[in-house]
This record gives sequence, structure tokens and C-alpha cells, in this order.
Amino acid sequence: MMEQNMEPTCPIPMQQYPHILLAHGGGGKLSHQLLEQIVIPTFNNATLNVRHDAASLVIKGQSLAFTTDSYVVHPLFFPGGDIGSLAVNGTVNDLAMVGARPLYLSVALILEEGLPIETLWRVVQSMQWAAQNAKVQIVTGDTKVVDRGRGDGIFINTTGVGIIEHTQTIAPQQVQPGDVIIVNGDLGRHGMAIMAVREGLEFETTIESDSAPLADLVLQLLAADIEIHCLRDLTRGGLASALNEIAQVAGVDIAIAESQIPVQEDVQGACEILGLDPLYVANEGRFVTFVPSKDAERTLEIMRSHNSLSLTCQPCIIGFVKRTGSGLVTMQSRIGPQRIVDMLSGEQLPRIC
Amino acid sequence: MMEQNMEPTCPIPMQQYPHILLAHGGGGKLSHQLLEQIVIPTFNNATLNVRHDAASLVIKGQSLAFTTDSYVVHPLFFPGGDIGSLAVNGTVNDLAMVGARPLYLSVALILEEGLPIETLWRVVQSMQWAAQNAKVQIVTGDTKVVDRGRGDGIFINTTGVGIIEHTQTIAPQQVQPGDVIIVNGDLGRHGMAIMAVREGLEFETTIESDSAPLADLVLQLLAADIEIHCLRDLTRGGLASALNEIAQVAGVDIAIAESQIPVQEDVQGACEILGLDPLYVANEGRFVTFVPSKDAERTLEIMRSHNSLSLTCQPCIIGFVKRTGSGLVTMQSRIGPQRIVDMLSGEQLPRIC
Repeated sequence: MMEQNMEPTCPIPMQQYPHILLAHGGGGKLSHQLLEQIVIPTFNNATLNVRHDAASLVIKGQSLAFTTDSYVVHPLFFPGGDIGSLAVNGTVNDLAMVGARPLYLSVALILEEGLPIETLWRVVQSMQWAAQNAKVQIVTGDTKVVDRGRGDGIFINTTGVGIIEHTQTIAPQQVQPGDVIIVNGDLGRHGMAIMAVREGLEFETTIESDSAPLADLVLQLLAADIEIHCLRDLTRGGLASALNEIAQVAGVDIAIAESQIPVQEDVQGACEILGLDPLYVANEGRFVTFVPSKDAERTLEIMRSHNSLSLTCQPCIIGFVKRTGSGLVTMQSRIGPQRIVDMLSGEQLPRIC
Repeated sequence: MMEQNMEPTCPIPMQQYPHILLAHGGGGKLSHQLLEQIVIPTFNNATLNVRHDAASLVIKGQSLAFTTDSYVVHPLFFPGGDIGSLAVNGTVNDLAMVGARPLYLSVALILEEGLPIETLWRVVQSMQWAAQNAKVQIVTGDTKVVDRGRGDGIFINTTGVGIIEHTQTIAPQQVQPGDVIIVNGDLGRHGMAIMAVREGLEFETTIESDSAPLADLVLQLLAADIEIHCLRDLTRGGLASALNEIAQVAGVDIAIAESQIPVQEDVQGACEILGLDPLYVANEGRFVTFVPSKDAERTLEIMRSHNSLSLTCQPCIIGFVKRTGSGLVTMQSRIGPQRIVDMLSGEQLPRIC
């Protein structure tokens, strides 16, 4: 059937990676290669090419945001959340990252034969609770069932539609030398909450995922006329991958300081035990904001006073945009020397979201 | 975490079906139960409660349609299509069933570790070809990878946004006694194309899936001012399930005639070999239209002259809405007696879409 359309051949060198590896889904270099060499060139259009967390659409003069994510996290339930609330918050956050007000979600479930109905019930209840908390409505859906051994309990896709009411352009391309980089709280909790369960690690305190909806906070920043150049949530690949992607697309060099990056003691401890770097660990309620220095202090104030119960904000300035450049991210380490913070090349934590 | 929200207990009797069965995804009675007892009561809102193929949204006065579907078809490639083109056409068709003009799609891929990159490449090319053919743009996406044995090659979710430019209400609730029921072509080809490959059946001719985008045809009917009461594509569960659902929601009894229902000879033969009833077999380019009798002839004419290469239309009047009633669907059989056409109760063809 499709022969007539098959003239272009697959551009990824077959001898190098002939098969999909877990790392193709990890948010690092191989994910990037898949996207840049297969997906974006094939679907090639101006909206997709912006490479943002959500697509910006204009329908009859109204700006909308549109974004999709599948959730395959394992285990389904973890301290601080579950696949259901994660699937709502994650997609709400992608809408928030273009400054949109989230309105509607679709929910598509892929269930594995043999899943306890009680588990499905708990996940669906959690989704509805999260949707109410994030002020979105779940308005359409789909359910598929696959044979035992061809899925893993539940996979969830949520796709979100939001409305863009501001007139700023929030995109990696807007990032400029001199911009201050702010994170809204401590890093690494989502990833380490999952890993602690998987590895059976016990700490004095339980590490809880930071999963939370971010749209309200972003809308408050916009309402206060903060000039926002770029927003990016720190999911797969963590802070390091997000900064590398933005630096590359914007064509700038970025400098951050290790001493300014907030990581809870228990998270730091768990990372050390497992040989992981918190800069690369996934978060589900953390994002970076790029603002001109004139707006940095007000941004911190608004974040500090944000009154969401689900979002404990201890915002920090972690670095700045140094200059126009080739996309280099460097970090002043605690013990002195600078080092290059590269994009993740392998797979650190599979199935984290 | 969620205990405070868990007061309502799962309403499906645990002793009856404690686990998900393949039939929960088959489009029949168990799918219906899952939807009516777990999903709709939980997410309960006016938009979802309409129970249509796509949700109708109004954003700042503009009517939009929004729909989602996951595709888990096995095998990935089959005569007449593949999972990629199916994922585009299927979601375009759900938008068409509310009379929307499809505009944008999101694409979310769940890949299994070990999938040949070449296979992914072919699927993605096919999606782009189908999107161009259906006049939609793929504007945002996501890729996840799951460990070997936790997925099945590729699962695809597509979610669609369309614009509603007509002022008719197209919904099961609009169906009235006297309405004529029209299908746009022969039934059962998609399901039997898949089954023939799975079962290794050989016929003189290859049965090809009817997978095709339906939006253009529906937009032509609307442009001709056909009064459309309801549209429904005949996917999982086939014609029988679609008519039962509509009859129940509309509160009417429906009568169809077996002799008027077009089924190709090879499809009929394959159904007989496998003990299947073509009324329950999935289609991916077929739909029913409910129109008042005054518009029936013009509807047939427009369908016959529709010039899409991918959609060979041989439309037929297959029945009519008899009276207000309890949702009974009866069929005049070829050999004389009437029989009740019930909703599918088990799982006829798993993973057909």
C-alpha cells in the first residue's frame, strides 16, 4: 500500500542503533536524535518545528495551546502520587509552559488484560481529584485492552487544550544574554521517590514526589506582568537536559552554580547510594523560568507567596545566560572548578513518567 | 495520599468481574459497563455525558470538537493500511462524526524496547501521508519507551481538534421515528483484513481494510444542507453495537433488513469460516447516517458522487427508526423471520484498532 510514499529512507544509521532502546525514551541524546531525525522532519510544519512543550494554535483568531503525553510510570502508585494524578498534572504543566490556562483534557487508557478493576477505579478517582485541583475538565476518552504480557497494567495518555490569554512570546528562542534562571523549588524528588520504591530503599523519611499542577503559579506571574522569556518543566532528563535543549535552540551559553541548586538531604543521599546525579533526575512539579534581571526579584516573591497546598515553593536563582554561543551549559561546582553539564547520553531512570 | 478521596467504592461487583478482560476493550457490553459505571460517573460533566465520538467544546464563542483514541492493532501492517494511517484516519473520523472539520492532531507513541527503528520509520511516514490525505496537521507529540515484554511494538495515541462550522445538532439524542439509516459502503472489511492475516487465511483476492478518512464526505453533506440527525462510525463492535448504542440513548426502536446490508463475498466467506457475524465486525471507513426521509435520496447521491480515491462509496439504505421505544434493534433476515440484534456481549476480535 505505502510503497509509493517510501522513497525517503530512514536517516538514523541502522548499523549504529537498529532497534529502539530504553534510552530513546529517556529525554537525553537518543530521544533527541529520534525527534530530530525521524519525527520532526517527517511531520515538518511551522507549529511543530518550534519544539515547545505545547503547540500554539490560532483558530479563528483565538490562541490555543495543545499538548499530549503518555504516562507509563512503574510502579503505578508511589509516595506523593500515582499514574493518574501524574497524567493530569504532567499535561496541565505542559500547557502552563506556554503560559496557557488549561481548560480540557482527554484521557485514553491502555489496560492490560488481568488488571484488577479496583486498581483502575483508584487511578480514575485520582485523575478526577487531580483534574479538579488543576481546574481542568476531562471531556472525552478512550479505553483499549491488550492481552496479558503485551502491556503493563495501565498506560495513560492525556492530551490537553488550553487558552492563551497573554500576549507574550514564551519560547526558547526568546532567551537572551543576561536572563536570570529561576527554579521554583528543590530538585529530584519525583525521580527518587520512584527509585526508592523500585529499589526497596528505606530512609528515615519517605521521599515524596513533587508532582503538582503549575498553571496557577504561571498565570500569577503573567498577571503580574513579569516578562517571561522561557518556561520549561524539568521532567525526563531533569534540569541538565532542559537547560541544554534551551541553550541549543536559543544559541546561548548558560552558567549555573551548584551551590544555588536546592536538593533535599534525603534526595541527595538516595542519589549517592544509587550513583545518580540530581541534575538529571526527573521532577513533576518543578520548572525553570528565564526572566530579565529587572524581573527576577518579583518573580521570586510571587513564587514564595504562591498559596497552593500542593506546591511548596522555595524558589532560587540558579544561574544566568552568559552570552550568545553554541549552547554550552557550565556549572560552577561547590568545590571550585567549572564543569560542562552535558545532555544525558544514556538512560538514567526508565519509565519515570 | 488519596485516602481522603476514596470514600466512594468501585461500583462494579468485584465477584463478577474482578479483573480486566479483553472484552472490556471490545466495544460491547463489558466496554459499556466500564464506561457507564466507572468512567462517566467519576469524570461526570455535561460535555462527557453526551457520550458522543468527540466532545463539543465552546471556547470564546467558537465551537470546537475534541477526541482521542489509542491504537493497539495487531499486526502493525495489514492489507489496506497500517497502525499509522489507521491512527490518523480513526481520529479524523471521530471528529467527522460531530460534523467537525479536522484541523490538528497530536501523536503519542509508546514504543517497546527492541522495536526495529525501520518499523518506526515506516509507521511515521504512513502517518504523515494519511495526515496530508485527510488535510490535518500533526503539531505536537510525545514518545515513551517501555521495557521489552511490557508493550507490543508500537501503541499510538492520536488526539484531534476540529472546528465546528455548521449549526446543526448532530447527536444520538436527535434521532427520531421515521429517520432513514444509511451506510456509506460494504461492511466488515477492516476486521476481516486483520483476521485473515492473523489466522493465515488465503482467499482468491486479498481482503483490504476499508480504512479511510470520512471528514470530506461529511462536510459535503453539511454543505448541501442535509438535515443530519446522527452520525456514527462503525468501528469496534461494528454496525450492531453502534445501532444498539444509538437506539438506547435516543430511546427508539430500530428496524434493519439483512438483504440491504452490503457485505463483499470474500468478507462473507471469511466470516463464515471463522464463525463471525459481519454485523459485529469492525470497519474503519464506514459510518451510519440518520436523516429524515426527505433527505435520504440526496444523501445517497452525494455519497455516490464523492470523489475520494480512498473511499469507494456504495451507499445503501439499511433500515429506519420505527418508533419511540426501549432501544430495540430488530433485523428482517434474508430467510424470513425477524430477529433481535443485540449488543456484542463477549470479545469477538481483540486488538482490531
